[in-house]
Amino acid sequence: MSRLTITAVRLTPILVSDPPLLNTQGVHQPYTPRLVVEVETADGVTGLGETYGDTTYLRLARPLADALPGHRVSDLNALFALAERVCGDAPPATGAATLDVGGQRGVLTADKLRLSVVSAFEVACLDALGRTLGLPVHALLGGKVRDSVDYSAYLFHRWARHPDGVPCEPDDWGAALDPAGIVTQARRFAREHGFTSFKLKGGVFEPDREIAAVLALAEAFPGMPLRLDPNGAWSVETSLYVAGRLRGVLQYLEDPATGTDAMARVSAGTDVPLATNMCVTTVPEIRDAFTRDAVQIVLSDHHYWGGLHRTRELAAVCRAFGVGLSMHSNTHLGISLAAMTQVAATVPHLDYACDSHYPWQREDVITTRTRFRDGRVTVSDTPGLGVELDHERLAVLHGRWLDESTYGHYRDRDDAAAMRAADPGWQAPSVPRW
Amino acid sequence: MSRLTITAVRLTPILVSDPPLLNTQGVHQPYTPRLVVEVETADGVTGLGETYGDTTYLRLARPLADALPGHRVSDLNALFALAERVCGDAPPATGAATLDVGGQRGVLTADKLRLSVVSAFEVACLDALGRTLGLPVHALLGGKVRDSVDYSAYLFHRWARHPDGVPCEPDDWGAALDPAGIVTQARRFAREHGFTSFKLKGGVFEPDREIAAVLALAEAFPGMPLRLDPNGAWSVETSLYVAGRLRGVLQYLEDPATGTDAMARVSAGTDVPLATNMCVTTVPEIRDAFTRDAVQIVLSDHHYWGGLHRTRELAAVCRAFGVGLSMHSNTHLGISLAAMTQVAATVPHLDYACDSHYPWQREDVITTRTRFRDGRVTVSDTPGLGVELDHERLAVLHGRWLDESTYGHYRDRDDAAAMRAADPGWQAPSVPRW
Ligand SMILES: [Mg+2]
Ligand SMILES: [Mg+2]
Repeated sequence: MSRLTITAVRLTPILVSDPPLLNTQGVHQPYTPRLVVEVETADGVTGLGETYGDTTYLRLARPLADALPGHRVSDLNALFALAERVCGDAPPATGAATLDVGGQRGVLTADKLRLSVVSAFEVACLDALGRTLGLPVHALLGGKVRDSVDYSAYLFHRWARHPDGVPCEPDDWGAALDPAGIVTQARRFAREHGFTSFKLKGGVFEPDREIAAVLALAEAFPGMPLRLDPNGAWSVETSLYVAGRLRGVLQYLEDPATGTDAMARVSAGTDVPLATNMCVTTVPEIRDAFTRDAVQIVLSDHHYWGGLHRTRELAAVCRAFGVGLSMHSNTHLGISLAAMTQVAATVPHLDYACDSHYPWQREDVITTRTRFRDGRVTVSDTPGLGVELDHERLAVLHGRWLDESTYGHYRDRDDAAAMRAADPGWQAPSVPRW
Repeated sequence: MSRLTITAVRLTPILVSDPPLLNTQGVHQPYTPRLVVEVETADGVTGLGETYGDTTYLRLARPLADALPGHRVSDLNALFALAERVCGDAPPATGAATLDVGGQRGVLTADKLRLSVVSAFEVACLDALGRTLGLPVHALLGGKVRDSVDYSAYLFHRWARHPDGVPCEPDDWGAALDPAGIVTQARRFAREHGFTSFKLKGGVFEPDREIAAVLALAEAFPGMPLRLDPNGAWSVETSLYVAGRLRGVLQYLEDPATGTDAMARVSAGTDVPLATNMCVTTVPEIRDAFTRDAVQIVLSDHHYWGGLHRTRELAAVCRAFGVGLSMHSNTHLGISLAAMTQVAATVPHLDYACDSHYPWQREDVITTRTRFRDGRVTVSDTPGLGVELDHERLAVLHGRWLDESTYGHYRDRDDAAAMRAADPGWQAPSVPRW
């Protein structure tokens, strides 16, 4: 048995507190499910990975965890065929869905679900491999080309607190429901983390109100890159109207409309660059979107693209087609932030600051939280990912997941259902909403 | 100083004997230039790389070799910017050329020249890194997905010997100048190496004669994949004529015509798959060729794509566009065969047997020559590339390179010039030749 042989895999589903951040589908639940993967080797080294923790993902993760012992942590390319063999094509847990979280993560295919699971195992293997060899993960990906990675502030319209009667962990950010509130939020992000670029989650209010928020940001932070992402909530006409109003103000407009066809029509009608993490989220979607010039920037996400090697491959495809690269984020913890930073450090043409929800997460499973300084995360040169698991915190958050009577309906993220706690008649709007 | 820090780099240009293999530009010289790169680390470990050895490449390799000490063998992604900084844009040694060896390797841009040089350094660094960590190179690329790599027999029309009065190392293969000669050659390849697929270098004789050779192969080796590669020598009309005659016989037709435009027109007119190592040899050529469906298979070459990581990236681009992948070969030695095999082992959709000139090379610089069994090379799991340098042989071949009075005019490969030793009036034909 090699020292790189996997001897045990532990899966720990957890529920992490999340503020009431609004998007076009509804609102973030007070708790969001994540899955922590620990891969242990014959050497006694443990590697860490993190991914979505919804029931469907857990159902795929279990057979992969069972199949992994005996394989080596260096056998990353073989993970995909192994997962295909053992995971099966689990259908989405909620019968209806062919879109994940109302489409905010794009299509939800069996392949993509499986890749989202594999990614956590790949990252955990890379972490274990790096720890064993004494090398940071970036060195296992060909080495870093920068010493820090730029992130942008991720601004949200939000309530001060979750609806009455809902269990939650309150925070002190207060509400942000208009341009002034967004600017106040941005100032705090700038002050606390040094961010110098800003992304506003849109699709929540009518477009003119969100245009006003972006213009207020432009006035408050002159010259700093700004982005707006309504998660595909607009028609082509509305998208072009917004693009016209914010031309010269936005660095890019993210997923104004839903689907490659609509995006291509928007793209043809404006010179504001379009970014996406919705219409290009799987390999089969690339060809159509790129040949039609539907998007100029892809926001990669190592979770659903299948890990750090696959993220580098996506970057190569983008480079070949002159498509820019940035990075997408869902609610995530410190393990994934470390993974994002390690892979981002290795991609030469990652020309845009990456997204991260991390500053909104006050709970974590690592011992020392990662800090943003001047809006950047320093690339760790410590062996592996450079983060350590806080077993006590993990147990607490896992305990919450186990407490089914109190938290059971948060095991699957559903932003529309969370909205119904405040507005019982709420249905996720169909797109285009405006 | 890390144990991975590079302390010394040795460049050894050599001349390797080569048989009189014919192509559309002329004939292989009796000696072909190669460059062997040795990268030594603080740990005393030496990694090996190999690339083209023409004067232009040497001129670029020297400043890179000088700049490398102090860097780490794990800093592969950073090699490209370093090379850009220190190498400069050396123009081709022969003022005229914007095509390499008469276009047989595609365009000759400054970027591509530099990548061709970087590749040998990248491979040498990977070899040293693997030796240091106790891992085969494939494990540094995410791990192998197969235990052996298929190669195809590379058949050539050829003379029995180089022209009279030319220094050379004779062999016992005899001439092959007609279909019967090609079949005899193929039988020996099958007997000695077990090859079960065959590629014929075409563009030498009028198309009907080469069609006859392919048909003779089909009769001699029923059901075995066959390929024909005239290096772009044909017009679109001739290409379509040949494709029509060999439909159902050829696995693919390789570079029948020159340039993406002509290839796209051939592709539109036949369902015989088209392969290329001429119209897609650099990243900037990909978009046009892929969006126009000009080629269905790309023959990657880690030398001119810039190394093993870049080869994996090319594979990812091909996968995203449904383009198949095979592997190109120029005259090369055992270091490059090992590198080709290691990277090929990691690419899941490498669905075609790779090309290799290796069986034609009777000289080498490694201690134990790699063997083909059943047309396959076993993927080495030995740390690094799995080959050892034969310093004595290297010195002999370098001595030949140093002997300028006898061998000086072979320092730059020029197949047309070599042909003039037999036919003083020969000029490389312009394309389309037929
Ligand atoms: Mg988005
Ligand atoms: Mg060829």
